[in-house]
Amino acid sequence: MSNAFSHLLVLGGARSGKSRFAQGRAEALTGKLVYLATAQAFDEEMRERIALHRADRGTRWSTVEAPLELAETITACSTSETVVLVDCLTLWASNLMMADRDMAAATEGLVRAVLAARGPIILVANEVGLGIVPDNALARRFRDVAGRINQEMAAAADEVVMMFAGLPLALKSKG
Amino acid sequence: MSNAFSHLLVLGGARSGKSRFAQGRAEALTGKLVYLATAQAFDEEMRERIALHRADRGTRWSTVEAPLELAETITACSTSETVVLVDCLTLWASNLMMADRDMAAATEGLVRAVLAARGPIILVANEVGLGIVPDNALARRFRDVAGRINQEMAAAADEVVMMFAGLPLALKSKG
Amino acid sequence: MSNAFSHLLVLGGARSGKSRFAQGRAEALTGKLVYLATAQAFDEEMRERIALHRADRGTRWSTVEAPLELAETITACSTSETVVLVDCLTLWASNLMMADRDMAAATEGLVRAVLAARGPIILVANEVGLGIVPDNALARRFRDVAGRINQEMAAAADEVVMMFAGLPLALKSKG
Repeated sequence: MSNAFSHLLVLGGARSGKSRFAQGRAEALTGKLVYLATAQAFDEEMRERIALHRADRGTRWSTVEAPLELAETITACSTSETVVLVDCLTLWASNLMMADRDMAAATEGLVRAVLAARGPIILVANEVGLGIVPDNALARRFRDVAGRINQEMAAAADEVVMMFAGLPLALKSKG
Repeated sequence: MSNAFSHLLVLGGARSGKSRFAQGRAEALTGKLVYLATAQAFDEEMRERIALHRADRGTRWSTVEAPLELAETITACSTSETVVLVDCLTLWASNLMMADRDMAAATEGLVRAVLAARGPIILVANEVGLGIVPDNALARRFRDVAGRINQEMAAAADEVVMMFAGLPLALKSKG
Repeated sequence: MSNAFSHLLVLGGARSGKSRFAQGRAEALTGKLVYLATAQAFDEEMRERIALHRADRGTRWSTVEAPLELAETITACSTSETVVLVDCLTLWASNLMMADRDMAAATEGLVRAVLAARGPIILVANEVGLGIVPDNALARRFRDVAGRINQEMAAAADEVVMMFAGLPLALKSKG
């Protein structure tokens, strides 16, 4: 493969510029750009917001919704001719939790799908564990789940970047 | 200009040592030290705390209060003979939000004022986006606003540092 | 001493992999492994969880509980033949606050005990200050206390590492 990496994980907090950075990295690669959106449109406002983001990405991108079956969608979409961007793992984790899925199995399936992908995969995830311990038990459980997914994906990735204020910080680089 | 940088942004969480670090960097430069305070004294306790901080900085510093009109104050205070420290952007953002100001316009004005300043400007800002998504809508909006300001200022700065436990981590360095 | 460091501080958010990393670093050193646990078992579930963690660490480790008298326990346990792991400072701070202890004095005592230790000490601490300002005053105070302890320990440590998604980022390195 001529692409400079296979699997990049972009971590960051809210408004850290992670999606924009990930998109820029994807667009710098050669291949058909596929955006795997994990956001779910529960109401009209959300639908409009998703449509706006899609318009922003422009015509070079095709968008596939994968709120739950992310591993399967990666397997279906990734070819040697594509660059797949997953935005984001943390929303996917939230969707899975609401659907009462087995998180460990889902994470394992995702890692397998990413490692088996035939083109580069760029994954965006939120870092949510650096505030005070949340009052409510669901938030604490979500924080654990999101953190475990980030650890698993970071271990599987060739390159991991942490974003602060729009600036990337390398956590793991390709040898 | 003989100073080693023009615009430094110091990011960090609560009790990360960002103010102390920023102050040390300012004091290492040549020039009249001007402290632009964005904190507002709403009660007697706050007034005492602000007075204490001012006494701590010592007689080398003069203090100017700029809870809202920060861009104008920077323009008024920065000369080729001054070192201006803004502490902090996140309190300023909070003051603006409470005063129902246009955040995008205010941020743009701040960037313009910083870039046009004739002496070095050191800006302190809080990183607030690395916890769990807040329950209340105002906190979520504030998190977005603070994050956007940090991104804009980081893009405009020559040097960006992130503080953890009193230790600086370089995110952007002057070429 | 043949060990590569004397005092290592491992910082990180929830599920950042800090305990595992600290344990790996301890096991790579020569000496009797002593785990100083600051967690308190308030109920049966907690007791089981602590027992499970203890079993996970295996027979190379001996465990000493030090929910409050951490400095004294370090002084008692550290010899030129031991590697002491403290997990974690943030739970200790929480225990002290609940017991209404003097935090500044306790932190000072801890720093003194660590600096006087005769073998390597590895300390784990949570970074909790990078979310939105908490609503409740106790959480805000705890955030301040935990942040101050982290700063004091980082200043005293030879090496400081920040964990993100299981990956270490060097904040301070020896020599």
